[in-house]
Amino acid sequence: MNRAQIQALLEDVQANRASVPEALERLKDLPFEDLGFAKLDHHRALRTGMPEVIFASGKTTDQVARIFAHMAKAGGNVLATRASRECYEAVTSAEPRATYHETARAITLEQTKAPVGKGNICVVCAGTSDLPVAEEAAVTSAALGNAVARITDVGVAGIHRLVSRRDELLQAAVVIVVAGMDGALPSVIGGMVARPVIAVPTSVGYGAAFGGVAALLTMLNSCAAGVTVVNIDNGFGAAVAASRITHG
Amino acid sequence: MNRAQIQALLEDVQANRASVPEALERLKDLPFEDLGFAKLDHHRALRTGMPEVIFASGKTTDQVARIFAHMAKAGGNVLATRASRECYEAVTSAEPRATYHETARAITLEQTKAPVGKGNICVVCAGTSDLPVAEEAAVTSAALGNAVARITDVGVAGIHRLVSRRDELLQAAVVIVVAGMDGALPSVIGGMVARPVIAVPTSVGYGAAFGGVAALLTMLNSCAAGVTVVNIDNGFGAAVAASRITHG
Amino acid sequence: MNRAQIQALLEDVQANRASVPEALERLKDLPFEDLGFAKLDHHRALRTGMPEVIFASGKTTDQVARIFAHMAKAGGNVLATRASRECYEAVTSAEPRATYHETARAITLEQTKAPVGKGNICVVCAGTSDLPVAEEAAVTSAALGNAVARITDVGVAGIHRLVSRRDELLQAAVVIVVAGMDGALPSVIGGMVARPVIAVPTSVGYGAAFGGVAALLTMLNSCAAGVTVVNIDNGFGAAVAASRITHG
Amino acid sequence: MNRAQIQALLEDVQANRASVPEALERLKDLPFEDLGFAKLDHHRALRTGMPEVIFASGKTTDQVARIFAHMAKAGGNVLATRASRECYEAVTSAEPRATYHETARAITLEQTKAPVGKGNICVVCAGTSDLPVAEEAAVTSAALGNAVARITDVGVAGIHRLVSRRDELLQAAVVIVVAGMDGALPSVIGGMVARPVIAVPTSVGYGAAFGGVAALLTMLNSCAAGVTVVNIDNGFGAAVAASRITHG
Amino acid sequence: MNRAQIQALLEDVQANRASVPEALERLKDLPFEDLGFAKLDHHRALRTGMPEVIFASGKTTDQVARIFAHMAKAGGNVLATRASRECYEAVTSAEPRATYHETARAITLEQTKAPVGKGNICVVCAGTSDLPVAEEAAVTSAALGNAVARITDVGVAGIHRLVSRRDELLQAAVVIVVAGMDGALPSVIGGMVARPVIAVPTSVGYGAAFGGVAALLTMLNSCAAGVTVVNIDNGFGAAVAASRITHG
Amino acid sequence: MNRAQIQALLEDVQANRASVPEALERLKDLPFEDLGFAKLDHHRALRTGMPEVIFASGKTTDQVARIFAHMAKAGGNVLATRASRECYEAVTSAEPRATYHETARAITLEQTKAPVGKGNICVVCAGTSDLPVAEEAAVTSAALGNAVARITDVGVAGIHRLVSRRDELLQAAVVIVVAGMDGALPSVIGGMVARPVIAVPTSVGYGAAFGGVAALLTMLNSCAAGVTVVNIDNGFGAAVAASRITHG
Amino acid sequence: MNRAQIQALLEDVQANRASVPEALERLKDLPFEDLGFAKLDHHRALRTGMPEVIFASGKTTDQVARIFAHMAKAGGNVLATRASRECYEAVTSAEPRATYHETARAITLEQTKAPVGKGNICVVCAGTSDLPVAEEAAVTSAALGNAVARITDVGVAGIHRLVSRRDELLQAAVVIVVAGMDGALPSVIGGMVARPVIAVPTSVGYGAAFGGVAALLTMLNSCAAGVTVVNIDNGFGAAVAASRITHG
Amino acid sequence: MNRAQIQALLEDVQANRASVPEALERLKDLPFEDLGFAKLDHHRALRTGMPEVIFASGKTTDQVARIFAHMAKAGGNVLATRASRECYEAVTSAEPRATYHETARAITLEQTKAPVGKGNICVVCAGTSDLPVAEEAAVTSAALGNAVARITDVGVAGIHRLVSRRDELLQAAVVIVVAGMDGALPSVIGGMVARPVIAVPTSVGYGAAFGGVAALLTMLNSCAAGVTVVNIDNGFGAAVAASRITHG
Repeated sequence: MNRAQIQALLEDVQANRASVPEALERLKDLPFEDLGFAKLDHHRALRTGMPEVIFASGKTTDQVARIFAHMAKAGGNVLATRASRECYEAVTSAEPRATYHETARAITLEQTKAPVGKGNICVVCAGTSDLPVAEEAAVTSAALGNAVARITDVGVAGIHRLVSRRDELLQAAVVIVVAGMDGALPSVIGGMVARPVIAVPTSVGYGAAFGGVAALLTMLNSCAAGVTVVNIDNGFGAAVAASRITHG
Repeated sequence: MNRAQIQALLEDVQANRASVPEALERLKDLPFEDLGFAKLDHHRALRTGMPEVIFASGKTTDQVARIFAHMAKAGGNVLATRASRECYEAVTSAEPRATYHETARAITLEQTKAPVGKGNICVVCAGTSDLPVAEEAAVTSAALGNAVARITDVGVAGIHRLVSRRDELLQAAVVIVVAGMDGALPSVIGGMVARPVIAVPTSVGYGAAFGGVAALLTMLNSCAAGVTVVNIDNGFGAAVAASRITHG
Repeated sequence: MNRAQIQALLEDVQANRASVPEALERLKDLPFEDLGFAKLDHHRALRTGMPEVIFASGKTTDQVARIFAHMAKAGGNVLATRASRECYEAVTSAEPRATYHETARAITLEQTKAPVGKGNICVVCAGTSDLPVAEEAAVTSAALGNAVARITDVGVAGIHRLVSRRDELLQAAVVIVVAGMDGALPSVIGGMVARPVIAVPTSVGYGAAFGGVAALLTMLNSCAAGVTVVNIDNGFGAAVAASRITHG
Repeated sequence: MNRAQIQALLEDVQANRASVPEALERLKDLPFEDLGFAKLDHHRALRTGMPEVIFASGKTTDQVARIFAHMAKAGGNVLATRASRECYEAVTSAEPRATYHETARAITLEQTKAPVGKGNICVVCAGTSDLPVAEEAAVTSAALGNAVARITDVGVAGIHRLVSRRDELLQAAVVIVVAGMDGALPSVIGGMVARPVIAVPTSVGYGAAFGGVAALLTMLNSCAAGVTVVNIDNGFGAAVAASRITHG
Repeated sequence: MNRAQIQALLEDVQANRASVPEALERLKDLPFEDLGFAKLDHHRALRTGMPEVIFASGKTTDQVARIFAHMAKAGGNVLATRASRECYEAVTSAEPRATYHETARAITLEQTKAPVGKGNICVVCAGTSDLPVAEEAAVTSAALGNAVARITDVGVAGIHRLVSRRDELLQAAVVIVVAGMDGALPSVIGGMVARPVIAVPTSVGYGAAFGGVAALLTMLNSCAAGVTVVNIDNGFGAAVAASRITHG
Repeated sequence: MNRAQIQALLEDVQANRASVPEALERLKDLPFEDLGFAKLDHHRALRTGMPEVIFASGKTTDQVARIFAHMAKAGGNVLATRASRECYEAVTSAEPRATYHETARAITLEQTKAPVGKGNICVVCAGTSDLPVAEEAAVTSAALGNAVARITDVGVAGIHRLVSRRDELLQAAVVIVVAGMDGALPSVIGGMVARPVIAVPTSVGYGAAFGGVAALLTMLNSCAAGVTVVNIDNGFGAAVAASRITHG
Repeated sequence: MNRAQIQALLEDVQANRASVPEALERLKDLPFEDLGFAKLDHHRALRTGMPEVIFASGKTTDQVARIFAHMAKAGGNVLATRASRECYEAVTSAEPRATYHETARAITLEQTKAPVGKGNICVVCAGTSDLPVAEEAAVTSAALGNAVARITDVGVAGIHRLVSRRDELLQAAVVIVVAGMDGALPSVIGGMVARPVIAVPTSVGYGAAFGGVAALLTMLNSCAAGVTVVNIDNGFGAAVAASRITHG
Repeated sequence: MNRAQIQALLEDVQANRASVPEALERLKDLPFEDLGFAKLDHHRALRTGMPEVIFASGKTTDQVARIFAHMAKAGGNVLATRASRECYEAVTSAEPRATYHETARAITLEQTKAPVGKGNICVVCAGTSDLPVAEEAAVTSAALGNAVARITDVGVAGIHRLVSRRDELLQAAVVIVVAGMDGALPSVIGGMVARPVIAVPTSVGYGAAFGGVAALLTMLNSCAAGVTVVNIDNGFGAAVAASRITHG
């Protein structure tokens, strides 16, 4: 039963072609998507400026290219994560305006301006190994309409370098902290700033790092209250959560 | 070397009782807490309206009472979590203005008005078993200066009840979702709202619930991007994180 | 907006007090539970003959008694699981018709006849240690309107005893197999019968039994296709699943 | 000692060539498969309409082709699961009537009509990543003689889409729900339908999905009673269990 | 159908009261336990000299006493493991000949001489914490008809003490090595002797001992080939396995 | 200090070139291997008939070939496990008498007759997937001087087939049971025979099989006392343990 | 064969009562502890100044008192760890000179001066919850003859307080860092000092702290090279390791 | 604000161009790295003789070569770990003086003499499989300015070989023990020597070795107090910790 059907039903009531009890009975069963629910979905997309997203991992190069082109035609922004360079080359042949972010392994297409978030998102990590995840967070944050700051060379084993970046940290609306191995960085930063800290464990490390589990547990047990955590290597999810804050 | 000592040193330089190189040398070694660092701590407390907090679990009734009274004398707000009724009775004999929150197992003392956060924090859970953690989140949120809404009888196995509370969910600035067993509630709510969702797994359940691990993993793997997670049963931490968002 | 409000709206349309477009607009936002959704819940309860259920574990004796009495007043059947004898004594003082099932740790009250399922449910376990879980399954099955058969002294280490009960197993519509320690029983029974086998791991065992994890994994990896599994010690859940089959 | 030998023994008794005590002694040791046990196996196969099954994973292409051809000669139906296209090409050169199901990675050969089950089996999953497991369940269900319905684009993070498919779910005799990542879908569906729900966790996901463990635990801890679970990625086992229900 | 029934059937055949095909048909269905299967059980008990065994853990004092007395009446030997002194006192009031083994937490009653095994069983452990499990192994070994040697103060961190007991180790037919914490003792002993070594991990230890898991893993990964392992704290099982070797 | 040196020292004492206290002092420090310890090693090798063993996994083809040839020159038997066919081809070019066991992935060279064990070792498994591990056990058993019986097509889901092989099982001196997936086979066999049962979990399976962990836990928790367990896929270790029993 | 026996043998050789080959033969078998090995043990105790140690956990109050008194009679120092106050009261009635360390749950008796280590051992922890383990480390360090410094109120979430204690940290010969929850402290301190850092995870925390596993993994994955780790709550072991360094 | 700025400020005070309160205010905010903190870093590098280190795993051959060359230009020593031969070839084309350590998979460049540590570091392992990790420890130890001894063919299953190397072990200042599989070696060595023992678990093994977890747990639970542990396969970290001891 769609909008037209409801309208017809109401007109039947108005014209006394249907009694009120009959109409009542038929309305009870109408599927809710007909009542604007899909619109809700649509409204949310407009409100958050969130692009259409493709998680490329586990899809073929060809599949990603086709989905990307299809989405691009709809006129909105498109973001593909976990995408290899080969993947990008397939995408770009169909949609030449697409941009590749090498370290982030992300492809973006901006066709419309996302609503701008309040305050910048600061993405912090300790070094080169965590960069892909940090960049996924940064690129996603930008694609969602945020100003992004990056601090990419601070670690807990050289605490003075971190402390010297205090000002930049204090200026952020949200801090995303990406860390593998011991995952201790969010605890320290959580104690330095008053704004939300989102911690992203990475699968960087070996042995008892257990593919990011060690870092994940560290973050969940952070001594600094106010730190929340996302899945291992989930830079994308951290950025979405951060952007929900800045677009509040 | 405290502020007075630095002032004395500067006066010595001004009066030529100390040379510039001598002063330079002595300044190099001064401990930073003397340079207003402690004040930073203090400023943060004022800025966030965060009360002094006691984690009562693992402390004796007597210890909690003494720490509580000590903190109360400093004039700020005090919050004790994981506190039994016995614990509260000990506290109240020293500090009769303290309030006990039975379900939340929390003791609060409000002496000053915390700065009010922007928008309310909505705490959601499925039922009676998860209530202690949900109430810890709600009481903490209130103690941090937030308006709090509660939805405490919705679950994924009766999805229409949840959907019927959509309006309340959409009005929240932040949603804290508390869930044990399968931990599926934040995924559903994460798809219904556009604001940040903080998921709190609880240790409610048995067998393969593994004391909250099942719910924790569910939440970390949420299909709904934008959900972040805190430690099992950590209602307090979720509230602090939520309050950092509303006080941004 | 409840049924009365919708009726009023339709009457407004009929009486031309409201235009069709106006009515259409207001209908779009109506909460669905007003559209008979709650009735769905109600219908399902009637269709499945499922009693109201209280999971007593983690609730006080007093809480269980009050909830039990409240449910009993509604006129349907009531089942409380994981209930101690103390709990039963509290219940029985308010509702003297309640029955206690010692081994199953369950309290039942039958006020109306549940619709009878097709075929009996056979509950199998190896011995005395697994009996509480097996009885929870058996008592729940009966409360849901099923004929129940019990085989409670067969194990894989004495395979001839099991084989000699083949006829009873073949007569069941569904077999619930409860096993701790090595959890091997469902694999053997799954190969002997052609009907659905629901396996319930128990927390019986020590050391590397890991509170039922060993049995759970055995069952999930059963060589006999067609075996499905529920949570550790979840005799109740197995019975509900079995009853969904017999009431198909 | 086979049937012929028993007959000979009985004839010896009849003809007084063997005394009753002698015959008694020899019968005590006879292997039971000679007493029709094998027939039991055979009868079960006929009764359930279950095809001969090959689990192709871990076997060479050549091995699968030879086993498949051998089974096909016996005149019954054959099903090979976890079979690559290369595997199918080897099979088809020996047995050209075989059909390949690309997404399900399954090969089927139908030579006889399986007895038809009562009611259809509805296979549900959230999207493309879970499709191979869902299709394995669907193709196996069909091969076992069942009508199959598919819902393949519903997830808990877009709950209205799921609710809009309620009618299809309610028409199924059994619902197989396939889900990776947070594995929350069976909990929601278990609350929507009154028939058995069989949950299949998939290894889809990354990080703390732990190859399907997160989804598995979610399902074992489902808030919706009546949900049973099979091994990770075990679409085949879910279909066998479902078919045992429809052929009851 | 029991032995008498089969005899009657054979007599019917002999007397031509039943035809051979009729007899054949009825024999097909006879339950196997009637064909001497139960006797197999009985024979094995006699052959191995294994006493009737009660696992007292999880049973009430009263239950153990009643089962013990019942078994004692059958005339064989009885062994109760994991039995407290209170348990023994209940047993001894019904069966005064029972003996309590304090450290092993075992109760024994010897009414008949178990067949003597070839060669002695040597039970080795490092010290007082592992003694209860070691004594359970030793007392069970003795109850099963074995000569038992004990070495109870050797550890890998004082390797010379172990080496000095080499002669005793070399004289054993089987060596049971009981160890908690690092569980390293079986590896060393496995390299010193040529006879079977059965390793028993104990739950002794704390922290990363994980209730015996650390010792269990050590033993499963032993550098010394020929070491086999039983469950954590399972001194009883190790003794049964050892006695199966000496009674070969 | 070798044997010659000790002899020289004793001769010095005899000839009064060294005093008794001096000799005493020098003897205290002598390394023990000089006192026949190495001989102990040698004696054990002779006594057990154990060949020199190479664990080929993780070594290059070339390394295995060189070690094999080196060992062969010493005149004893040689066994290489986890060896690919490529590996064998490298070995055979240097030592043409070597034999390859395809399924067992083992290379053997017999130059001397190993002492024959008492009674045969029966290796049991359920089917083709577990064959490589079962064959490793069988080939190793034979290389250690044992008669070997094989039962390779019995499983717990078709219990009658297993029961029909009872006689073969009862004739074995030791039974090695190899099983993956649910690992339930040793429990059933442990209840059927009176001799030692050594269980070998295999990494066969998927999902919650966790690379053999499920089968391992099942075996450690076996309901049948007297079952001992070795590491996952460790057919070699099981054979060494079994051979220690037959060579007692 | 003890020293006296060897001396007698040598005298026999000297007096020609035994031939050199005869003596050689008898020497080959002598147990090594007779050759001064026990002395090695003794020497080590003297060299390290290590007291006799009793791990009181799992022993009765009476057992600890008797062992303590026995050790005290030998004249050396005695240390009992994991000892309750009740335990101490039992000890002190037999040995009144014993001292109880409440927080460390340790009993000490000093009868002789342990050799003094080079440089002090600094024990660091974050606060009151970790104090028992930190004090066990401190009291043990002192009992082993070390100067001990304590820093007990620094944490990573308030990094400036830690930095302000830099001088004390730099003065230590070894730093023992005790931390529960996120276990991040050793990483930060490992980057601040150039001397060995021994990390002790504690079981402090809840939920995903998993009884100290989270902290343990953090420490094993420390970004700061040069950090080594001991078992959860093992303050004693850390002190022994530290003292081995200072007594080098 | 750097040293020059502080000097300028002090000169302003001296010259009365700035008042004391003004100077006080500006000093409060100065970043600490300007106060010699960076120098601390520098001093530590000089004091420990630690080379610049590259963890090559996860970096491209090209990245390693460029970083190596860059570090080499700074004039200090350089060490790259986890580096393949291909990696070395890239490095050597830019920096021909670099040396490759095949087994250790390490590249070193020595341009300045590291300060020599007190006493040698003895690296022990059981055989060829553990050699890469042992050599990483040995090469790193040497690069850090230590004399290194190696014992590479001792295992707990042949304990006499280990005991015969006692003298070498006793001469070491620190012993690094590298072991996979059961990880028992450090326990035995920890009981033989009085100096610090650093245990390194390796990922060598299969099945229940769980990639080094079994060995790790064994070591954390070592019966020999004074053993500390580093991450799985972390030969580098063990060497850094050992060198911190010898450079004390």
